Amino acid sequence: MPDYTIGVDMGGTNLRVAAITTDGQLLEKITLGVKVAMGRDYVIGEMCDAIHSLTDKYRSTGTFVGAGIGVPGIIDVPAGIMRKSANLPGWTDYPVREVIEKRLQTHIYLDNDANVAALGEKWMGAGRDVENMAMLTLGTGIGGAIILNGKIFYGMSGMAGEFGHITVEPQGVLCGCGNRGCSERYASASAVVRMAREAVESGKAPGLTKAFNSDPEFSARSVYNLAIQGDPDAQHIFHRFGEVMGILLADLVNVLDLEMFVIGGGVVSAWDAFAPKMFAELRERSLVYAASAPEDPTAKKEGASAQIANYTKKKTIITQALLGSDAGLYGAARVPLMR
Amino acid sequence: MPDYTIGVDMGGTNLRVAAITTDGQLLEKITLGVKVAMGRDYVIGEMCDAIHSLTDKYRSTGTFVGAGIGVPGIIDVPAGIMRKSANLPGWTDYPVREVIEKRLQTHIYLDNDANVAALGEKWMGAGRDVENMAMLTLGTGIGGAIILNGKIFYGMSGMAGEFGHITVEPQGVLCGCGNRGCSERYASASAVVRMAREAVESGKAPGLTKAFNSDPEFSARSVYNLAIQGDPDAQHIFHRFGEVMGILLADLVNVLDLEMFVIGGGVVSAWDAFAPKMFAELRERSLVYAASAPEDPTAKKEGASAQIANYTKKKTIITQALLGSDAGLYGAARVPLMR
Repeated sequence: MPDYTIGVDMGGTNLRVAAITTDGQLLEKITLGVKVAMGRDYVIGEMCDAIHSLTDKYRSTGTFVGAGIGVPGIIDVPAGIMRKSANLPGWTDYPVREVIEKRLQTHIYLDNDANVAALGEKWMGAGRDVENMAMLTLGTGIGGAIILNGKIFYGMSGMAGEFGHITVEPQGVLCGCGNRGCSERYASASAVVRMAREAVESGKAPGLTKAFNSDPEFSARSVYNLAIQGDPDAQHIFHRFGEVMGILLADLVNVLDLEMFVIGGGVVSAWDAFAPKMFAELRERSLVYAASAPEDPTAKKEGASAQIANYTKKKTIITQALLGSDAGLYGAARVPLMR
Repeated sequence: MPDYTIGVDMGGTNLRVAAITTDGQLLEKITLGVKVAMGRDYVIGEMCDAIHSLTDKYRSTGTFVGAGIGVPGIIDVPAGIMRKSANLPGWTDYPVREVIEKRLQTHIYLDNDANVAALGEKWMGAGRDVENMAMLTLGTGIGGAIILNGKIFYGMSGMAGEFGHITVEPQGVLCGCGNRGCSERYASASAVVRMAREAVESGKAPGLTKAFNSDPEFSARSVYNLAIQGDPDAQHIFHRFGEVMGILLADLVNVLDLEMFVIGGGVVSAWDAFAPKMFAELRERSLVYAASAPEDPTAKKEGASAQIANYTKKKTIITQALLGSDAGLYGAARVPLMR
């Protein structure tokens, strides 16, 4: 009988709880129609009930090791305390671990949603075969996480991996973090909508304007749909998206020289609209990538890139995430196994 | 009697060789008027003679552990093979370690000059008390190295830490690496001279023009001297230098969240001309730095930076290197102790 853990994904839309065996087999996944907006105590209550019902059900399966919870926001990981989250206003400084551990009498681990998504892809997804990788989660913003030797690299204060706030346009759009031209202002769902709005306001984007005025749920997906239908203004937005992803990845490859960069999150479904520009930009901008990229006979190699190309046998893999929205569930379930 | 190692610094100007005890005390430093331009075999010969004379002299002091050599360029570190160096044209694919080991019958280790400088500062310099740091060496370009848990972080292909090729100006000056707007095109000795030349050509920089036309050895130092004398055009160049250093450090702090960033190399002597702008830019651009910077009562904290400022107790230290041009010697001597 395999032992198992429980992973909890506290997304903005749903609360999801899964029981997963220690070798990565999904036993059961519960999706609760519980929005975090329903309030802290209600959410904690539903979460505890779901964990309890799963541990009760799989009691005979094997030993329950503990539960990991992926939370959006700034976490004090060692203490298991929620610090600050833009989406969870009532949770500031809330000792989530202590509260749930007392209630369920079990081991609880808290981590950031970007970190658990990366752990999930490392464990059962795109990063299964590598020990060193980074993950970029493209959603409302850009989440980032670094895995070294199979473990999350937290940095000094647990804040390593803030890829969404790398400067890609020094005098660009102002960001909530205080910087200008952060990558997530150009390569995220909210950035796509912003760029579309600006195109509509310019009065020079008829296709986007029509969609914007007729679709009450106009979103990044609407822009993507227009782009694949050939609308040049929508395509231009995803070219800009890809260009910025290329600059961002070039910076990360040059600094970290990792085996793999996994790109996930909802917006990765627009891959075919932004990835060609992203790879072209990355190859041109990173000497490390140009020297270690998988072969592409159409690519030009110039300057230092060409000179060092023959010295690296290992390849830098840039790839889509495999687990979709389940990455965070798998990763959260993986956390108790790593402590 | 303390054991000792030998460090070799193959700089562009001189060949320097030092015997250093395993607890970091300098026994003797030899500076040879041997330029690498004198050719590979001559340089190797002089290097071997110097190492041999030191091991002979300190034979009775303690056990000789081995010699480390810091080399500018791309090194295959595990194999001890020189790959490519812009400054050492005759050394391509030369098996330096094997050649010297055969000749001297001792352990030889090769590493990149940026890496050994970082190891030197970690061992006996600014980074003595930290285990995780990065070093930026400001010279003709920008050398970079990352130390995690006291050891060089090489990345997959030994190319991690290419800080000089981080994009700081997406449509900026073309770089030899193939990218545009690399940090070292704006924050290095060659960048200062380029910006000064451009100012002279503009016809609007009388102070720089006078110095440029009268000083046959016009250099980054000449521009610095003008800047501290109050020349506004020279000051403008170092403000741009500081701005770019701020963008670069903001990216690095956001990605790596390390305890310390040490800035060394010849151009660090212009610290007072570029550092104020660098810190202002860094604080504004990095939420991680703003949250972890040592107190500065004059600093404004806005946005996310202000919100998370109280959650980090540890401080991010940005500081000048302490060992000057000896960092590479100490670091090279340290390498044999780490293998």
